[in-house]
Amino acid sequence: MPVTNTLPDFSQGAAYVRGRYVPIGEAAIPITDWGFLRSDATYDVVTVWDGAFFRLDAHLERFFASCARFRLDPGLSAQGITQVLAQCVRLAGLRSAYVEMVVTRGQPPWGSRDPRLAVNQFYAFAVPYVWIANAEQRARGLDLVVSSVQRIPASSVDPRAKNYHWNDLTMGLLGALDAGGDTAVLTDGAGNVVEGPGFNVFCVNAQGVLVTPAQGVLEGITRRTVIEMAQAAGLPLQVRALPAAELRVAREVFLSSSAGGVLPVTRVDGQPVGDGAVGPVTRRMVQTYWDWHQDPRHRLALEDVAPPAG
Amino acid sequence: MPVTNTLPDFSQGAAYVRGRYVPIGEAAIPITDWGFLRSDATYDVVTVWDGAFFRLDAHLERFFASCARFRLDPGLSAQGITQVLAQCVRLAGLRSAYVEMVVTRGQPPWGSRDPRLAVNQFYAFAVPYVWIANAEQRARGLDLVVSSVQRIPASSVDPRAKNYHWNDLTMGLLGALDAGGDTAVLTDGAGNVVEGPGFNVFCVNAQGVLVTPAQGVLEGITRRTVIEMAQAAGLPLQVRALPAAELRVAREVFLSSSAGGVLPVTRVDGQPVGDGAVGPVTRRMVQTYWDWHQDPRHRLALEDVAPPAG
Ligand SMILES: Cc1ncc(COP(=O)(O)O)c(C=O)c1O
Ligand SMILES: Cc1ncc(COP(=O)(O)O)c(C=O)c1O
Repeated sequence: MPVTNTLPDFSQGAAYVRGRYVPIGEAAIPITDWGFLRSDATYDVVTVWDGAFFRLDAHLERFFASCARFRLDPGLSAQGITQVLAQCVRLAGLRSAYVEMVVTRGQPPWGSRDPRLAVNQFYAFAVPYVWIANAEQRARGLDLVVSSVQRIPASSVDPRAKNYHWNDLTMGLLGALDAGGDTAVLTDGAGNVVEGPGFNVFCVNAQGVLVTPAQGVLEGITRRTVIEMAQAAGLPLQVRALPAAELRVAREVFLSSSAGGVLPVTRVDGQPVGDGAVGPVTRRMVQTYWDWHQDPRHRLALEDVAPPAG
Repeated sequence: MPVTNTLPDFSQGAAYVRGRYVPIGEAAIPITDWGFLRSDATYDVVTVWDGAFFRLDAHLERFFASCARFRLDPGLSAQGITQVLAQCVRLAGLRSAYVEMVVTRGQPPWGSRDPRLAVNQFYAFAVPYVWIANAEQRARGLDLVVSSVQRIPASSVDPRAKNYHWNDLTMGLLGALDAGGDTAVLTDGAGNVVEGPGFNVFCVNAQGVLVTPAQGVLEGITRRTVIEMAQAAGLPLQVRALPAAELRVAREVFLSSSAGGVLPVTRVDGQPVGDGAVGPVTRRMVQTYWDWHQDPRHRLALEDVAPPAG
């Protein structure tokens, strides 16, 4: 081992790479890992807010379901993962964090192309909390562009298993930015919007019903939270196909994502949604989303997670 | 820099990582590179056979076209890339090699999610020649399974830009292996076969016409070579949709890939193709493919590539 004179600097974030904790800037995966060369991986993102994980159970449950769908084995129990994630957050000295867990296929023996012979690899990292929309955008609401790019269909890649197949989302985002918008929502090729780069989408339609797409999307944990908040508030809700045409004439539109919670949209393709201001249902959802972070049912304080064994 | 007592060991392969040559086992990409976290990358694979690149010009041309489609900048000219690739092969001491060039999005400044602000990164590596089918499989012919997984459609990801969106291919391959087959070909959701994990597909149909899918596929350089070989031989050829039903009753079936050239298929879903033996057109294509490696139009000898500057 090379002798180093300085302690590792975790101030930009900390990662767990094949059994070791390293500063985020040093975290790397082998170029030969099929997680890179074939995007053969699954992942999940959970946040820490004010010193506590938010809905970690739900994220872990989804992560294990994603692994099963792609036949990937993280090699750690839910408890083991929890300890690693908490350790990354603690090393980075963060009270609010964006925390990612990943399992990759690894690599089969040289010459073989059989994924079953690969040893899967677990990675994790914690960095400062990430917002899909900055403070100014959250105050005024985003301008959402309905992209002509079609989201990769469920017949090709199971969208319920969280994955890095984002070229469609990235191309849609680039198109939206070029057009002067803030971000993009993709469609299913049949006129319905589905999801965007890192978020699900909701609207309060012309009839005042909250609608979010049922199919062809990641079942976001924030989406689930919104659905539960709507039910708790007794708001009418429909989980079904959402035509772009319905979105355009909606009273309110918002996004849901672990990277920022509930994010208001006040323009679609540059045209104002309703009166162009952040609407009452959206405001209520934003407020409740952050309130729920105090609810002991959803919180797991970092202090309550034991350090990793060994 | 840590002091090391040993010379780097390039015997398993050599890589070029952000400006440095390293043994393949040490080649890694930052976990935060969107090339990994969003599979936001493009690549190409060229082979070296008997000390010479095969059709490197065609691969470089496709690579630059892929970069343009995904708005990625390799930051090197065709000549610069050629020198890096040749250097990787030389360092690895290989006379036959599988050589990959990659450009990734890199990473935008922390907090930003704008791909336009990222600094793209170039990687390359050379490892021993890779075969999609081993010697025994090449002699008897592969058993190709027609997968029920649909290839990611062109409306979502442009298949002409070579990309790592392989979950559909990997799931199809796992299904084929489970079923006792050797590999899988995916369909377009409308009953036509398209391509498989790392290859294009051809058949000599019941009428004796060579057919390969026109759309929804990577325009393989080996596919192009097969088309040119067929034209040179005066064989009837059609580039159009290829129904799975037509494949099943074909006289001959074969795959084309830089990872092995022309690879015979003698069973589809376990049923013999024709009489179940490798057919005459396939044999001729295999032979011509290797013969063309001696053609000066297609060869670039390693010795004729100058070492990289600096
Ligand atoms: C494609 C996609 N859809 C939706 C979401 C939102 O999911 P969650 O609320 O669990 O963060 C994400 C999160 O990154 C995503 O990547
Ligand atoms: C999806 C796909 N199709 C086809 C091919 C064959 O292309 P080429 O003949 O250029 O190797 C490849 C090569 O890796 C591929 O990945």
